[in-house]
Amino acid sequence: MITLYDMSLSGNCHKVRLLLSLLGLPYQTQAVDLRCGEQRSPDYLQRNPFAQVPVLDDDGLIIRDSQAILVHLAKRYGCEKWWPDDAYQLAQIAAWLSTAANEIFHGPAKLRVHHKFGSPIDTVAAGQTTDKVLGIIDRHLQNQDWLVGDSVSIADIAVYPYLALAPEGSLDIGAFPNIIAWFQRIRALPGYVAMPGMWQA
Amino acid sequence: MITLYDMSLSGNCHKVRLLLSLLGLPYQTQAVDLRCGEQRSPDYLQRNPFAQVPVLDDDGLIIRDSQAILVHLAKRYGCEKWWPDDAYQLAQIAAWLSTAANEIFHGPAKLRVHHKFGSPIDTVAAGQTTDKVLGIIDRHLQNQDWLVGDSVSIADIAVYPYLALAPEGSLDIGAFPNIIAWFQRIRALPGYVAMPGMWQA
Repeated sequence: MITLYDMSLSGNCHKVRLLLSLLGLPYQTQAVDLRCGEQRSPDYLQRNPFAQVPVLDDDGLIIRDSQAILVHLAKRYGCEKWWPDDAYQLAQIAAWLSTAANEIFHGPAKLRVHHKFGSPIDTVAAGQTTDKVLGIIDRHLQNQDWLVGDSVSIADIAVYPYLALAPEGSLDIGAFPNIIAWFQRIRALPGYVAMPGMWQA
Repeated sequence: MITLYDMSLSGNCHKVRLLLSLLGLPYQTQAVDLRCGEQRSPDYLQRNPFAQVPVLDDDGLIIRDSQAILVHLAKRYGCEKWWPDDAYQLAQIAAWLSTAANEIFHGPAKLRVHHKFGSPIDTVAAGQTTDKVLGIIDRHLQNQDWLVGDSVSIADIAVYPYLALAPEGSLDIGAFPNIIAWFQRIRALPGYVAMPGMWQA
């Protein structure tokens, strides 16, 4: 059985919910109450010493980090579209997983946590990171439908949630038409699931 | 032919130099002069729109991002030790690649760029991130020799350089005995190469 240690408002958790749904995998969720500090309980720290959601428990195999969970699910349950055998394609996917862990997290995700939950952040730095990464992704999608190759991959799934949640970070995504067209391709995938607050046409 | 777009003082570049050397792969370097803004030239931005080093050119295949380059080299040229076939092991490696892209970069690497080059950073935030990640890694290495499984992997290579460069960030690595023992295991690998400024016994 697959159990997702989950927090409903987390875009990192939504990456996992989205891929599980696209792959048609049954799973249960275990809510982690971050406001009550449940992520710092001894039990939870055993699962993830970083005290973050999500964590996946796949029949006793415990995996922390949203990108790592996507890798596990794609390799274990996906067809080659989700986990190509080619080194160069895997490397291109890995580059976007780094972007998700770094620039997306420290840009649009931080702006959202600031505007939605009032967390203190360096809004100038987060704004600069956001402008840079949105511009790069919009230009990247000018001549291709997906971030890597000619079909959806976990690169798209890792990058999508915090871009689609941009309105909650007071970001005007309307200036990025190629990103919006890509949103629409993702939303048309069989099994797609949204989360509240995501951009809508 | 493999060409590494390189900057000698970059720990991210050193991840790639180290793996190339451990794998015994011949390569040439092309220095990128960051102080003169060469990373923002139109030619370079074609290779990496993020305007960062390193970039790898492997017979015309262009790869940005140090973690992604490690994935490419491990999958294309490494034996199974470097690129296991098991989904769970790959996911554990991917989790540390995220840590390298996020916490290691925004913690010890930022402190180094501040103390060595005078870059303005939020030293409080970088210090907190550093304390957290060093503690987690030291405890993780208490009962195991390598970050994932029972042999060296690209997880170790991605995390090592900016931890070994901690003295340049005014960090006292002496408080983390398991990290120091792991440094020594890495330094004993056949083909190991150091870079100036790294921790020495």
